[in-house]
Amino acid sequence: MKQLHKQSHTNQRRDEEMPNNQTPPYSPKSYKHSSSRRPLNYLFNEQRFLFIIIGMMIGSMIFIFQPSLSAITATTTTTNYHINSHIMPSMPRSISISHRERTAFNPRPTGRVPVGITRRRMRTVVTGGAGFVGSHLVDVLMARGDEVIVIDNFFTGRKDNVAHHLDNPRFELIRHDVVQPILLEVDQIYHLACPASPVHYKYNPIKTIKTNVIGTLNMLGLAKRINARFLITSTSEVYGDPLEHPQKESYWGHVNPIGVRSCYDEGKRTAETLTMDYSRNEGVEVRIARIFNTYGPRMCLDDGRVVSNFVSQALRKQPMTIYGDGKQTRSFQYVSDLVDGLIALMEGEHIGPFNLGNPREFTMLELAQVVKETIDPNATTEFRRNTADDPQKRKPDISKAKQLLNWEPKIQLQDGLPRMALDFKNRILKEEQGDIDK
Amino acid sequence: MKQLHKQSHTNQRRDEEMPNNQTPPYSPKSYKHSSSRRPLNYLFNEQRFLFIIIGMMIGSMIFIFQPSLSAITATTTTTNYHINSHIMPSMPRSISISHRERTAFNPRPTGRVPVGITRRRMRTVVTGGAGFVGSHLVDVLMARGDEVIVIDNFFTGRKDNVAHHLDNPRFELIRHDVVQPILLEVDQIYHLACPASPVHYKYNPIKTIKTNVIGTLNMLGLAKRINARFLITSTSEVYGDPLEHPQKESYWGHVNPIGVRSCYDEGKRTAETLTMDYSRNEGVEVRIARIFNTYGPRMCLDDGRVVSNFVSQALRKQPMTIYGDGKQTRSFQYVSDLVDGLIALMEGEHIGPFNLGNPREFTMLELAQVVKETIDPNATTEFRRNTADDPQKRKPDISKAKQLLNWEPKIQLQDGLPRMALDFKNRILKEEQGDIDK
Repeated sequence: MKQLHKQSHTNQRRDEEMPNNQTPPYSPKSYKHSSSRRPLNYLFNEQRFLFIIIGMMIGSMIFIFQPSLSAITATTTTTNYHINSHIMPSMPRSISISHRERTAFNPRPTGRVPVGITRRRMRTVVTGGAGFVGSHLVDVLMARGDEVIVIDNFFTGRKDNVAHHLDNPRFELIRHDVVQPILLEVDQIYHLACPASPVHYKYNPIKTIKTNVIGTLNMLGLAKRINARFLITSTSEVYGDPLEHPQKESYWGHVNPIGVRSCYDEGKRTAETLTMDYSRNEGVEVRIARIFNTYGPRMCLDDGRVVSNFVSQALRKQPMTIYGDGKQTRSFQYVSDLVDGLIALMEGEHIGPFNLGNPREFTMLELAQVVKETIDPNATTEFRRNTADDPQKRKPDISKAKQLLNWEPKIQLQDGLPRMALDFKNRILKEEQGDIDK
Repeated sequence: MKQLHKQSHTNQRRDEEMPNNQTPPYSPKSYKHSSSRRPLNYLFNEQRFLFIIIGMMIGSMIFIFQPSLSAITATTTTTNYHINSHIMPSMPRSISISHRERTAFNPRPTGRVPVGITRRRMRTVVTGGAGFVGSHLVDVLMARGDEVIVIDNFFTGRKDNVAHHLDNPRFELIRHDVVQPILLEVDQIYHLACPASPVHYKYNPIKTIKTNVIGTLNMLGLAKRINARFLITSTSEVYGDPLEHPQKESYWGHVNPIGVRSCYDEGKRTAETLTMDYSRNEGVEVRIARIFNTYGPRMCLDDGRVVSNFVSQALRKQPMTIYGDGKQTRSFQYVSDLVDGLIALMEGEHIGPFNLGNPREFTMLELAQVVKETIDPNATTEFRRNTADDPQKRKPDISKAKQLLNWEPKIQLQDGLPRMALDFKNRILKEEQGDIDK
């Protein structure tokens, strides 16, 4: 087609030149008339038609043997679109950059869009997206205009957490266990799926390892297949009972390989190894986050984690259970800070691992005090024997994330706890109401 | 049926009593005649038939609601067989106890033999049985009279290593990758399958993790299914670059989770975790060995491990390559010592993990010296930069195995190296012969 077009263009130029060399009676208009009188003769003269055919064959051959050229054409078109959005008045690049900007910064996924299909919105899958952290991440991704697919097996996730998106056409919820492969077409994979609190991950330790290792293998395989960017949420538990304090990302950890918590700790460590190996050997774009203790609305009420335990115990007027002497420390990160960090990591250029946590350290006794101050001044405490392998202290060094992701947590415990308590209060009320209804 | 039989027995007794109370003309024989004349009347009189039916119902109910009773009858028969073999003249319990003794001490596997099938020989599967360590283990198991099944994918294993058993009807070789499930009926599973030298396990790190995690999951699943005892060969690499020296089994290790060696180190750690979880949660009888550097005949000639490197280099009149400054230490265990340890562990009562290694420590420079002394006095050395994450020293504390398994290595380096060199010399000659044949 191109070749044909070129040919006819050349003809026109020759036609335009001709009048100048010819006698005045031939006006441009009359020339056109005369040329239209014998077009077939003209075409068949001097092997013109033969050359048209040869040209068509050459053109076809190029596209037959180099099908990627069609893609280039398509990409060029799309890139123009990107450039248009790119040259919009200077916008500061922040963590909450919009969908259009992100595609401008990251032209990679567009190569996958089949020719002739208009560039669509960013598609993101969040495994474990009906869980505590996942659902908050989904809220932000939905708010910025993504198409969001949530995968959850609802072992610890709850439909309630994403119920407000169910009637949005950009949202989709799939009941699926990541231990089995799944084929999707997406641009980004946030792989969060795994029970994260000891009471849940110890419930079936073999399943926990399968989720962490086979689940991660499946999602990395998907990322490789569809050329999607992959982010895994690892955990501060990879540091085990750390001998370094605070923990830097370069610390190798102090983990018992054969203890009752190992299914989670070792499972996540192997998931990190797999992620790095897919990066090094398969060229998959990966991101690794190591999440420290996080709290906020939608946490499981009774998952055995200290913040949710204390808050729900205080709200139920029960004594707060402190394991051991209460001098072990934890750092507590509000969930919106974590979600900001995850998105900054996914959109950034660095693989990680990155510690995402709040470095402000609290002993269990101090935490109980904050709960008293912000939720119920009459709350009491009780002490119990500590569980096996419970780390004595855990505190992130977040200087790497500060420097490379320009991220740090903003919400302090005194501000975050009341927001969580409000959600817990409503759910506990609903729960009690449910009991009365029965 | 039982009830019916009992009933008819009672009838007979009553019938036998009757003649005494009746007139002489009724001989037993004539009585039988007379009773056979009206059996239906007799049966239907006085609700006899009704009671037969009630009895049948009660009998059936017992077996319907207590199906284990049928099993008890069957088990009793089997147990008698054990007692008979158990009361044989007192035999000392040693590591190399014979097949019959072992089943006597360990009545577990016989429970699986279907009723009516004669007790067979001990059946053992060795995954990775065509490899270096596996094939030596197979030699000992075959020598003691087991039926041995070898599973190998021949990634690093070689048919040559087990070729001398191929025509033995007690031996079977299956080409199979443990990453896929396999169903077998065996009594013991020695799970050795995994490439063990860095050059092999780094070749495809993702496959190495799959072999360690999914492979171990499959074999543990098999052990659970068929109630077999399961032994996994873990590695001193679970200690990583140890900060404790020598390493006790209680040491948690110092392993980089995201390095280039992690596929093996973390893979094996997770395999240990899985093994312990199958023990704790599924009741599978497991054994964990942590193998330290081992050498001997049938090692790969060029697998990058220091002993095989040095020996084959010395035999080929090449300089021995020393990475780094040569002051990093290793302990070297002769393969027959390891095999003794593995069998002692499998037959013993302790789960482990147990360090199996030779605590005698050599620097790389000292090792080169021993090679010079025992193989070629003219051997030379050359130095190269060390590889990433290479542990600086590694030495087992074997007091646990000494105490609980009554095991310790017997063959020292000066004695073992010449045996290995003899095998290597033959293979290198064959190799060169092969090159000439080509």
